[in-house]
Formats: sequence, C-alpha cells, structure tokens
Amino acid sequence: MHIDLDRHSGITLSEQIRTSIADRIQSGLLQEGEKLPSVRKLSKLLDVSLMTVFHAYELLEQEGLIDRIQGKGTFTLGKSKGSKHRPSQNDSGKPSLDWQNAVVDYLPRAQYWRMMQTPLLDVAKLSMAALHSSLIPTEWISKQFFQYAQLDSTLLTEYGPVQGDSKLRGAVLPYFREKSIAVSPNEIMILNGSQQGIDLVASTFVGPGDCVVLEEPAYPCTIDVLRKRGATVYTIPIDEEGMQVDRLAALCDTRPPKLIYTNPTYQNPTGTVMSARRRAQLLELAQSYNAIILEDDATSDLYFGTKPPPPPIKSMDRHGHVIYLKGISKFISPGCRIGFLIADGTFITRLVSSKGISDLGSPLITQKAILPFFTSNQLQKHLPVLREKLKERRDLVLQILNRMAPKSVQWTKPDGGLNIWLSLPPTMNADDLHTFALKEGISFLPGHVCFPTQQQYHHLRLSFSYLDMHSLERSLITLCRLLQDFTSSDQHSQRMMPM
Amino acid sequence: MHIDLDRHSGITLSEQIRTSIADRIQSGLLQEGEKLPSVRKLSKLLDVSLMTVFHAYELLEQEGLIDRIQGKGTFTLGKSKGSKHRPSQNDSGKPSLDWQNAVVDYLPRAQYWRMMQTPLLDVAKLSMAALHSSLIPTEWISKQFFQYAQLDSTLLTEYGPVQGDSKLRGAVLPYFREKSIAVSPNEIMILNGSQQGIDLVASTFVGPGDCVVLEEPAYPCTIDVLRKRGATVYTIPIDEEGMQVDRLAALCDTRPPKLIYTNPTYQNPTGTVMSARRRAQLLELAQSYNAIILEDDATSDLYFGTKPPPPPIKSMDRHGHVIYLKGISKFISPGCRIGFLIADGTFITRLVSSKGISDLGSPLITQKAILPFFTSNQLQKHLPVLREKLKERRDLVLQILNRMAPKSVQWTKPDGGLNIWLSLPPTMNADDLHTFALKEGISFLPGHVCFPTQQQYHHLRLSFSYLDMHSLERSLITLCRLLQDFTSSDQHSQRMMPM
Repeated sequence: MHIDLDRHSGITLSEQIRTSIADRIQSGLLQEGEKLPSVRKLSKLLDVSLMTVFHAYELLEQEGLIDRIQGKGTFTLGKSKGSKHRPSQNDSGKPSLDWQNAVVDYLPRAQYWRMMQTPLLDVAKLSMAALHSSLIPTEWISKQFFQYAQLDSTLLTEYGPVQGDSKLRGAVLPYFREKSIAVSPNEIMILNGSQQGIDLVASTFVGPGDCVVLEEPAYPCTIDVLRKRGATVYTIPIDEEGMQVDRLAALCDTRPPKLIYTNPTYQNPTGTVMSARRRAQLLELAQSYNAIILEDDATSDLYFGTKPPPPPIKSMDRHGHVIYLKGISKFISPGCRIGFLIADGTFITRLVSSKGISDLGSPLITQKAILPFFTSNQLQKHLPVLREKLKERRDLVLQILNRMAPKSVQWTKPDGGLNIWLSLPPTMNADDLHTFALKEGISFLPGHVCFPTQQQYHHLRLSFSYLDMHSLERSLITLCRLLQDFTSSDQHSQRMMPM
Repeated sequence: MHIDLDRHSGITLSEQIRTSIADRIQSGLLQEGEKLPSVRKLSKLLDVSLMTVFHAYELLEQEGLIDRIQGKGTFTLGKSKGSKHRPSQNDSGKPSLDWQNAVVDYLPRAQYWRMMQTPLLDVAKLSMAALHSSLIPTEWISKQFFQYAQLDSTLLTEYGPVQGDSKLRGAVLPYFREKSIAVSPNEIMILNGSQQGIDLVASTFVGPGDCVVLEEPAYPCTIDVLRKRGATVYTIPIDEEGMQVDRLAALCDTRPPKLIYTNPTYQNPTGTVMSARRRAQLLELAQSYNAIILEDDATSDLYFGTKPPPPPIKSMDRHGHVIYLKGISKFISPGCRIGFLIADGTFITRLVSSKGISDLGSPLITQKAILPFFTSNQLQKHLPVLREKLKERRDLVLQILNRMAPKSVQWTKPDGGLNIWLSLPPTMNADDLHTFALKEGISFLPGHVCFPTQQQYHHLRLSFSYLDMHSLERSLITLCRLLQDFTSSDQHSQRMMPM
C-alpha cells in the first residue's frame, strides 16, 4: 500500500492517510478482513508522528471502515460486495498466493472497476450514463465495418499510426470548426475512448504531489486516474454557472495548480453548464498561472434547446493551455472505443509519444468504421433525432420527480446531456437508499464516488439515457416511492457514511 | 524535465542525470537548440552537488549531445531528424506556445515514437518486426468482422467488460493449455495489444526508484515504459541460454528487484531462447526475493524446428509470481490490437482495475473478430504454414549473410521468431551505417535503443518477416555490400556515439 503524502497541501496528513485507506476499502482494493500495518509501523513507513496515524485510524474507525481489536491489530471491514468478486486464491487448488498482498501498488482508488464489478442482472440501470441501443445508429456502423474490413485488407495487417488514422483526423475538422475550434490534423490524436486521454495527460504531466483541481462533484474515473498519479487533488464547488472560478482564483494564490480538469458542458454528474463568462475567466487564470486545462467534452452535442451551449474553452485558447477531449461514446457508439484529443505545440508531441508507449496505437478498423459519419451527412441526420429522444427522456424524468418526489429532495434540471443529480437531506445516505433500490431492481450511481476528498453521501446520479421509455418511467416511479419511504423514515437518517 | 534519481542504485548520480538527458535528446523529446538549466540551477533542483551536474554535462558534451557556449549557456544538439517532425508552433499564426516547454513531464524516453515518426517511404523495412501481409489470414478475419458486426448489434452499442469478452477468455483456454498453462477465464484479461499489458503492469506495480531488471539488450518499448515510471533499471546480459540468471542472483543479494521483465522465447531483439534450466532458476529467484516476473511471449508460436521451444515460465508458476503476456500481433494480426494477460490472485484484480481506469475496456468487435481462430481449427491450419514461410525467410537471410557479410560482423541464428541480431566490431556505429542504408532505401533498427543504460552502438536488429521474399533478398544483398564498404573504411570506425 503506497501512500503519497503532500506536506504542503493544507490538507492534514491524518486526513490524507484516511482518504488513501478509505478509497482502497471502498473500491474493494483492500479486502474485508485485511490486516493494516500497526500505528508504529505505518508512522515509521510514512515518516509521520504516531499521533497522525492514530488519528487517521480513529477517523476510519468512526466511519465504520476499520476495526481495531485490542491485542490483535487493525482490520478492514471493507465493502463485502466488492471483495466477493475477487477470485478466490485457493479455488484452483494452487498453493497460497498471500505474498502478493505485500506487493505495493500505485493504485489507491478504482471506483469505476468496483461499480462495473457488481453484476446487475435484471436491474434497470439508471446508473449507466450510456445510450440505449435504439439511440445508436448500429446498422450504419455495421455496414462500415463490413465495407472496410472487406475492401481494405491493410487495416488488419498493419499497425496504424500512433497518432491515429490521418483520414479520420482530417475528416473531423469541419465538426470541430462548428464548435469554433480551428485545428489542423497534426493537432489531433485518436484515442481508445476519451478515458485514455485523461490517463495519458495525467501520466505525462501529473506526478506525485502535483496540485490538480477538479470540479466538485466530479467524474469518478478522473478522480481514480489522478489519485493513481499521486497528485494532490483540490476541488472547487459547482453552482448553476459551473465551477466557481473565483474560489479557484483564491486557491491559485496559495497553491497554483498544474492541471485543472473540467467538464464544462452538461457536467458529469450534475448536468450543469459553465457560463461563457466563467469559461473565459478560467482560461485567463490558467494563463496567469501557467496551468493546463483538461477540457472533457463528452456531451456538448446533446443539447435540448434550440441553441447549442457556449463554445468549448478550447475555442478561445490562443496559447496552448487547453487539452481538449471529445469522446464519441455518448453520441455515436461506445462500442468503437474512439475519442479525440486536441492539443498543440509540444503538448501534442509529448502526448503522442506517451500513447505510443502505452499501446503502440489504436486499431484502424474501428477508426474507419466511424469515418463516414464525418465524411457524409450522417451525423447531421443523426444528432437532431438523438437530441429529441433524449429530451423526451429528460422531460419524463423531471415530470415524475416533480409529481412524486418528496419535498426534501432536490435535483438539477439539465438542458442537455444524460444525467440528473439528486440531493437528499444532508443527514441521509444514498448508499442505503441504493441497497433498497437494488432490491426493487433499480440501480443508480451513489454520489459519494464523485467526491475526491471529504465525501458527501447524500447525493445520487440518475442517467436517463440507457433505459427504454417504458422501463424509465416504471423505475422512476418506483424510485420516487422509495424516496418517499426513505425520507419519511427515521432509521435511515442517522448514518453519514456507507457501510 | 523531471529527473528521478535513485541514491541507492550503485549507478552514479552523474550517470543517472546523463542518461535522463541523453534519452530525451535521442528520443527527440528535447528539440535541437533547447537551452538546458544551468549547472547551478539543476544542482539545486535535484539536490546534488555542482560537480555532479558539471560531470553529467561533461559526459553529454563528449557524446556530442550538448554544446556549452561560454557566457550563453548549455544547448542541446539533438537529433534533428526527430525534431523536424514536431509541429511548428507558429505555422497557424498563433501566439507563441513557449511556456509549454517549461511544463515538467514524466516522459524521459520515447524511442518507439521516434522510430515511427521518421517517415520511411519507399524504404525496405528490415526495421519492422511485423508480418508481411501475405502471412496474415486477412480474408478470414474480414469475414468475422462482417459477420459479427452484422449479426450482433450490441457489439457497437455496449461498453464491453473491462476484463474482456468472456467468450474469448473461455475460448483461448485450450491454446494456453497446449503451452502447459492451466488457467481459468477469470485469470485472463484482454488488452489493446500486449504493449498495454507492459504499461499496466508498470503503472500498477512500479514506481519511482523501484528496482527492475531487463535483459540486455531488451525490447525498446519496455525500456520506455519503465523509465516513464521512474524505475531504476538494471540489465542482465544474455548468452546463448538467455538471461544470465547467475548474474541476476548476485544482483538480488544487494538490490532485490521488484520486477523482472523477460522475453524468454526468440527474444526481441536477439532471437535467443532461454533454456528450461534457466527458466526454472529464474522462477526460483523470483520466489526467494518476492519478485514479479513479467514474461512477454510474443513469438513462441513461431518455431522453425519440429519441436516447440520450452514451455513458458508461467507454466511452472505455482505461487503467482509470473504475469504472462501473449500478444497476437506477431502470429495473427497486428491490426486488431489484441493481447492477453494472465495473472492470478490479487494481481489480476489489481490489473483489471488499472485497465478500467486507463480506457474503460477494449472494443468488443475486434475481440469477436479473432474469436473463431480459437473456436475452430483455423489456428492449427494457419500456424504451420506461417512457420514454414518465416523459416524460408530466415534461411534466406542467413544464407546471404554467410555468403556476403564481412568476417568482422557476427549474427545470431534464431530458431524462431522474426529477428536476427548483428554485431559490428565494437568501434563501429550502427547509426552511421543506418544513414548509408537509408540512402540505399533500406532501414533496420539501430541496436542502441535496446540498451536502457550504457548504450552499445555497434549492433543492429534485422527483421525478416515484413518484406516479400524478393525485396528481402535484394535488400539483404545491398546491406551486405554496405557492410563490406563500411567495415573496410576507416572513417566510420572512430565515433562511438550517434550524431
């Protein structure tokens, strides 16, 4: 268990140790019943005082994450759901693999893996921020696979260029131009989905103790990636105009960040849009403090009004501060695993080098399969229909919530994207609600995974894109009923932390 | 420019600084004419003595990599080939992006990127360790793409499981059983090519200052990955039985490695096979010192004799020390970008978590396209033909070398795989030879990129798999002629370092 401590972060060392261990337990990376190092041992290992470790363990115990047994030691209580799915070490009759537990890793948190590990059969997944199959032009894409696989055999025999297929990089220029991003093909890199972009930017530019800033709440997989790099993560709360940039300015004075990650349009998980004014302010701040902005734009194509949202921050970027990510999973197909990264100067050079090291390049065939979206009018035909259908879903959810949700529950009303963010009264715990919901065949995303530090447990994310209309309606009604029971019952309102 | 120093490595700090800067220059990551920090500044930054930095700069100057100009500073001389391909920062009329140069990265070396960046049009690529298109069952694979893309639309609409398609993980069991590897599907993970496996293992288990061991010479992209993690890299020379395990044992006494990377069968770049005896010894060492063995098995299917090579080290592994990688690029198709990772216990759990963070999973369609190779007799039909054709190529190359190469040149005679390793007299420089070769329309891999430290410049790797028989013959004859000129000429035998 490798723990990166940042002695200049303003976050107490006890709190840093607590977060590191809590994340591992909640991700299922530390199994239930695992013995933690003694206070003395850990304090020596981390070069901190006995009191610091003692206090961290105290906090963990208060949260119900560990158990200190007099004379025996400190043990994790864990999330049994996560640990159940670890392969049992003795099921193949092999000798013990216990020595592996002592092998230090650089993987403090893996919430995505944990979420995906839990098998949810016969469950209506309000948890999935992905498109229902009827919203994806499957037939069209299949045809492209067929044509390219048949006609151009080199697709299967050659390593593609590390930076990505040059035809595709050329073909997307008009699409980005429409977003006011003027770019040349050599400033674009093709990724295995935009998640790879987050990982590459972090592994190239972020190291232990580097200061990075996220919105609060934030996309959980970005938190996983930045924690894996040992970064010190600060968060800036969101209001109806997006990230509160004035608060970021205050932080910059004491601790200028190296990287600011933002999801300005239909933010995941809240659905908020950062105003044009804030976008400009954010860019200005990045310029003043030589910071990198990592702009993750998954859903700006999915607007429900008549006008698109404000142009990406990248469109205003003159000095190469913004690295822009555009995945296609949320509006064309998640199955192709394609995303685009836009950067310039030495940033794109360094990121292409990094991509080469990490996988030698993406498959050409999936890149070719989506090429015709950008060389024909297919995207122009597809997007308005998709927006209309998603709006219908959003409207349905809001309508049911308005009608049936208890007064003490609040939610966002996003103008686009895939998600709505619900907040219960602060004394309540969405993880407990989730336990009840699963019993009724419904899943959602418990909001605490969206907080990198000082987790809040009373939020949840509902994605309205993955179910058909009928299941969406039915599960929302059930959820509202559960919410009514839950908020009116006293027994669930005491615990602040998940089991 | 982030430099990781290991004060307990036994390698002098000057040498570590030299390697870090030399790698960046030779990779093209530091451009020609870039100003390095002053001796005073770098010594303060790295907390080392002025003499240490001074000596490192002295070494770099002797190698012709930097230039110290009295009163102006220290500048890189660089590899102009590499730097030429950086996007010019002012070609779009944008303001200067110079601030980017000061942004520290964690990317000390990127030889793969540099090799792939150099456009080699109309060049016979003896440098490519890949299969000629006629050796790949393209038509068969195309048909699978077609069938699956048409019949199963969920392939395009769904994120696949992070660990990989469960059918494919099940279907490869007999293939691995034939290699004496008994494994269950939950101990297999599907990768975007085996390179991703190297990257995931390194990013999960290797951190700054961790001691790792490679064969010498070694596969260049593994060196890139481990340097990116800030590891302290030690090398163990190879003889005709593979890695000299007794030398590794001596190292373990003073500095037990956390990870040992090996390519035991038809090693890239030398083509050597590690003997069964050495394999067993290596595993024993790993057990004694709680080390991980990362066994990269790209080419064990490509044997030219009647009997396969010794079984993988993984087949003897009872305590989960070996993480085994099997890419399909060298015997089915590089275009699909598929590889397999086999590990057990908490290792596989942690690696799957890491894969989730890095890209949320690989595309299902490419996994489905190769599935029928393992569910039908296609692989059994394909492999013997492939072996026969590669053997023909190997025989042709050895025959020409025997007939025409100068006596002072030595080479390996591999019983399988794709590569032959040539050694010139130690005073000669294969980079210079490469410059001449390119003028004659031939490329090969200059061997120095295969050395993580203390580079040797008099080797080269020839891959005999990528050209058709006719081009292979013609380019080998030309190369032999060049070798004759080169070894008989005095002018090329003085410089020890590349330009």
